[in-house]
Amino acid sequence: MSPIEVSLQAALDALGDPIRRRIVRELAGVPDWTRACGTFSHLPVAKSTLSHHFTVLRNVGLLEQRDEGARRLNRLRREEFERRFPGLLALVLDEDRQGDDDRPER
Amino acid sequence: MSPIEVSLQAALDALGDPIRRRIVRELAGVPDWTRACGTFSHLPVAKSTLSHHFTVLRNVGLLEQRDEGARRLNRLRREEFERRFPGLLALVLDEDRQGDDDRPER
Repeated sequence: MSPIEVSLQAALDALGDPIRRRIVRELAGVPDWTRACGTFSHLPVAKSTLSHHFTVLRNVGLLEQRDEGARRLNRLRREEFERRFPGLLALVLDEDRQGDDDRPER
Repeated sequence: MSPIEVSLQAALDALGDPIRRRIVRELAGVPDWTRACGTFSHLPVAKSTLSHHFTVLRNVGLLEQRDEGARRLNRLRREEFERRFPGLLALVLDEDRQGDDDRPER
């Protein structure tokens, strides 16, 4: 899914979840295609929930994935998402710095 | 509530509702303090729900209100909110222009 086709509603819904924002921030901190889905097991959610979060992020065009052997690698589509929703991703990436609370609430 | 103290989570939750985004867009189209809460009865929600939406918007620092006789007038805190969440309000105000669907879904 390209972010171009994504509604603001879908983007807000996707980023309204603190775990999904954390996934986005963690991916923003590493080079593209270096982080596999399996490396997010430290997050305090069930494996099936984690898998759902990745699907949601992919569906709003924030995430691109490719399989490499048994690993599913990720790339954050920063530029594409920024073009569609200027400023939104920056708010998420700055959230920790702003002293926001991103503990899971759901 | 000043937007300065608002978390990104609260802002995303507030703007995640299409009726609240519509209230914000309608207020952005008129001068400050000219639009009373009572003039939003065309929106397809119960009066109590509408009142809740105004409370949520006030609580994230998007709305300032003052009573004038029997009317509760509104002002959108555009500059303050923009300083706290750069770009976010613009996405909401541009939503219609982008061809997004803002029909109520909740």
